[in-house]
Amino acid sequence: MSAPRAATPGPGSGAVPGEALHGRALELELGSSTQTSHRLLAYSDALLSIIATVMILPVAHTKIHPDQKLGESVQQLLLTKIAVYLMTFLIVTVAWAAHVRLFQVIELIDDVLALLNLACMMIITFLPYTFSLMASFPGVPFGIFLFSVCAVVIGLIQAVIVLYGFYHPHLLNQQIQVSENQNFYKRHILKIILRGPILCFLAAIFSFVFIPLSYVLLGLVIVFPHLSRFITWCKTKILGQRNEEEEPHSLETFSFYLSEPLSKERVEAFSDGVYAIVATLLILDICEDNVPDPREVRGKFHGSLLEALSEYGPNYLAYFGSFVTIGLLWFVHHSLFLYVTKATRLMGLLNILSLAFIGGLPLAYQLTSEFAEKSHNEIEAIQVSCVITFFASIFQFAIWTTALLHERETLHPFARYGGKEHAFMFAKLALYPCVSLGAFFLTCLLSEFSTEIFHLMQIVIPFAFLALRIFVRISLTLIKSVMSLSRRKVVLLEEEEACLSPTDTLS
Amino acid sequence: MSAPRAATPGPGSGAVPGEALHGRALELELGSSTQTSHRLLAYSDALLSIIATVMILPVAHTKIHPDQKLGESVQQLLLTKIAVYLMTFLIVTVAWAAHVRLFQVIELIDDVLALLNLACMMIITFLPYTFSLMASFPGVPFGIFLFSVCAVVIGLIQAVIVLYGFYHPHLLNQQIQVSENQNFYKRHILKIILRGPILCFLAAIFSFVFIPLSYVLLGLVIVFPHLSRFITWCKTKILGQRNEEEEPHSLETFSFYLSEPLSKERVEAFSDGVYAIVATLLILDICEDNVPDPREVRGKFHGSLLEALSEYGPNYLAYFGSFVTIGLLWFVHHSLFLYVTKATRLMGLLNILSLAFIGGLPLAYQLTSEFAEKSHNEIEAIQVSCVITFFASIFQFAIWTTALLHERETLHPFARYGGKEHAFMFAKLALYPCVSLGAFFLTCLLSEFSTEIFHLMQIVIPFAFLALRIFVRISLTLIKSVMSLSRRKVVLLEEEEACLSPTDTLS
Repeated sequence: MSAPRAATPGPGSGAVPGEALHGRALELELGSSTQTSHRLLAYSDALLSIIATVMILPVAHTKIHPDQKLGESVQQLLLTKIAVYLMTFLIVTVAWAAHVRLFQVIELIDDVLALLNLACMMIITFLPYTFSLMASFPGVPFGIFLFSVCAVVIGLIQAVIVLYGFYHPHLLNQQIQVSENQNFYKRHILKIILRGPILCFLAAIFSFVFIPLSYVLLGLVIVFPHLSRFITWCKTKILGQRNEEEEPHSLETFSFYLSEPLSKERVEAFSDGVYAIVATLLILDICEDNVPDPREVRGKFHGSLLEALSEYGPNYLAYFGSFVTIGLLWFVHHSLFLYVTKATRLMGLLNILSLAFIGGLPLAYQLTSEFAEKSHNEIEAIQVSCVITFFASIFQFAIWTTALLHERETLHPFARYGGKEHAFMFAKLALYPCVSLGAFFLTCLLSEFSTEIFHLMQIVIPFAFLALRIFVRISLTLIKSVMSLSRRKVVLLEEEEACLSPTDTLS
Repeated sequence: MSAPRAATPGPGSGAVPGEALHGRALELELGSSTQTSHRLLAYSDALLSIIATVMILPVAHTKIHPDQKLGESVQQLLLTKIAVYLMTFLIVTVAWAAHVRLFQVIELIDDVLALLNLACMMIITFLPYTFSLMASFPGVPFGIFLFSVCAVVIGLIQAVIVLYGFYHPHLLNQQIQVSENQNFYKRHILKIILRGPILCFLAAIFSFVFIPLSYVLLGLVIVFPHLSRFITWCKTKILGQRNEEEEPHSLETFSFYLSEPLSKERVEAFSDGVYAIVATLLILDICEDNVPDPREVRGKFHGSLLEALSEYGPNYLAYFGSFVTIGLLWFVHHSLFLYVTKATRLMGLLNILSLAFIGGLPLAYQLTSEFAEKSHNEIEAIQVSCVITFFASIFQFAIWTTALLHERETLHPFARYGGKEHAFMFAKLALYPCVSLGAFFLTCLLSEFSTEIFHLMQIVIPFAFLALRIFVRISLTLIKSVMSLSRRKVVLLEEEEACLSPTDTLS
């Protein structure tokens, strides 16, 4: 969902970024229905991110009776729904990753491709429903069959898109367009795109024979890309790096387009969508649950709206606390990706795991606002919130750690070891894991810890961010001055040595 | 939500588009915390568009008893909720427009501005709740007071952003940065931003004295920008165009930045957000309402899931029909803005009106899927759907008509009169108004018209799009060949005349 700010005067006039594409403006003038794909992709990202996240709502809206123990209710009611949410999220992200790959190969679109893509989106948005069926009727083959059919249809539409793209080569990526072995590229991208649907096809067949096998096959769809990657990685580690050298050059540039980097902009757009929908789901809840009934106000509160609303005080606190948390986690993500120059596959995976927990935040809001009054569930609700926040933020931290392992390729110089923003970035990313862990342990130690204190903590954190910047600055200057003092001593010693050494050599 | 596809290597290295900004990459290296604003703006657009649209859910989820007459229920139950939805939508778009203006002046951000913007977003997302209070308690001053306070706080935060930006001039738009009368710019942008909040402040005061006046003042907030524009336009029409010539040159470039064009990319991003959330709200409904209860399946349908699901057949049809409609309206919007080079204020207004009706489509889906069985409400539900679709599409058509009035400034040559895409664009934009109008009249004529037929019509339309392109091509070539035939005759006549004329002059 990131937009270039300059006005793009029309189709194919500078709207295609990237140096390799500058020469195509003229070509576009020839085929008038050919268009740049960036808005189509942004719209697809928005759709996919909302679809991935929105299944948290049935989880969050599960009514838990105040007298019921939260731990038990979680086991009884929530577990299947949480499983549906996680499965939907992961499967949609697999579909999203395939979509990213596909449109890294096909860089320009026309009306037919736009319509095909919309058809694909329509089937993808239908997936959550098939998941709900699967969760409600785990033993009935029809749910899993319906899901598999949808996945196969999605795969077929994407295959048609690939074939259409290679039939009209001016739509393709410039480097594939000029390459000699286009057929090889075509076969490889088809293989990547149809891998999942073929597994689903098998799952559909086995659903009528032996259902557990179908579930295993579906799980494989999620794990497969990372598994195959991991196996290749192990192979190269065990067999040494000879294999890589043996590969022809064409494969190198090829793998650059198809397997290694996810487009950073699309990772950002997808993440923005998730953060945005999560932030707005909160207000939806508050609008539906916390507007008092006019009759009740007249009867119970003698017509005083203010008095009636003061009952909802804890909910407002929970709302603002949760919004601040989501907003700041977005802010950390934004700061991090400002300095990320390339998103590797592992970073993409960690980002998706982080987003899956971000999507769980409406559940945290619902729990803490529901059990605000001193009930025996209050502490447990806070603990669930802490756990969700902790995992969301620790995976963000892991993205950074992974990026640092290959910092020359993946990070801007400012954020690398010794860069001027390195220390501050570390502090930013470490803040939420530390705070949520701290809050978790406080709930264990203090019996007085309440949701009010928890939400106030959440609201205070942005000021911690500003304080952090000042703190890091001061400590850095302190360290530097100490370092320069000690260095000056070293320099003095060295100078003395230097003064001595000539005499030494002389002697 | 449109993203450039090329990788931007990091902060301030080519990520700032626009020729005037290319020289700033070096500057950015100096102030390391300075960042390009495009992702922040995209995130804000996503948040604002979702907030604007999401209030349709309480409208759509209003349960209407099947025996109740739809016409009456609309009056009783829906009217206040629809009013809340429309007010929220329009007020949020006013806030969005102010946000666009603001960040056309401030082009770069740093951490402080990012956090201030998030705080602003937090208050904006809270607005729908205050509206719900206002709608439930129209006679109580507290609701309107709360809303006004929120609006004032938003205005104050935005004012702080402006002051911060002008205090750090390297964040400003290049042309304002080099201008001599920065103070004048500052005062003017503050005036634009604080106009609404001051009206709200007055509304807050009057809410305790005389409530209707408060509502008038709030209505004024929505209308004011367009009203003042209209008055200026009338003045120039009546007094002639002298005023414009008298204005100094600095005002000209100034008004270019602040009053005339909305950034086309942000209009697109906001629209994408609305279309995306509307498309995904549908699946949420279907997931919550149309998953059968396991106990019911066991009892009523003897354990056959397929039989239980076949009861929901009409709902699936309604889902796919509605999704196709939304997807294609997005497609038309996308095609239109591909050829729009500049979005004027009037086009922005028409776009927002179109989006307000797009946001009503979940209501149309809910009505047609609820009254699918032959009840006396069925025809009325279809008619409501037709009306919503008609207005959504006719406003899109109006955008194009408005653009054609100033086609040299606003349209790409292909889409202007006589351009090669002109006829096809006309056909694309005229399709939905014609179809929805046709369906509406069919419901009046045929008593047999049912929701099934209506949704099948919706699903068939994409093929109409493809057929349209072929049809337009054929008819264009026919017209051209006829024209060229007649022209050849004219040419022949002219040639004869030309042959004659020399003799004439000779004689």
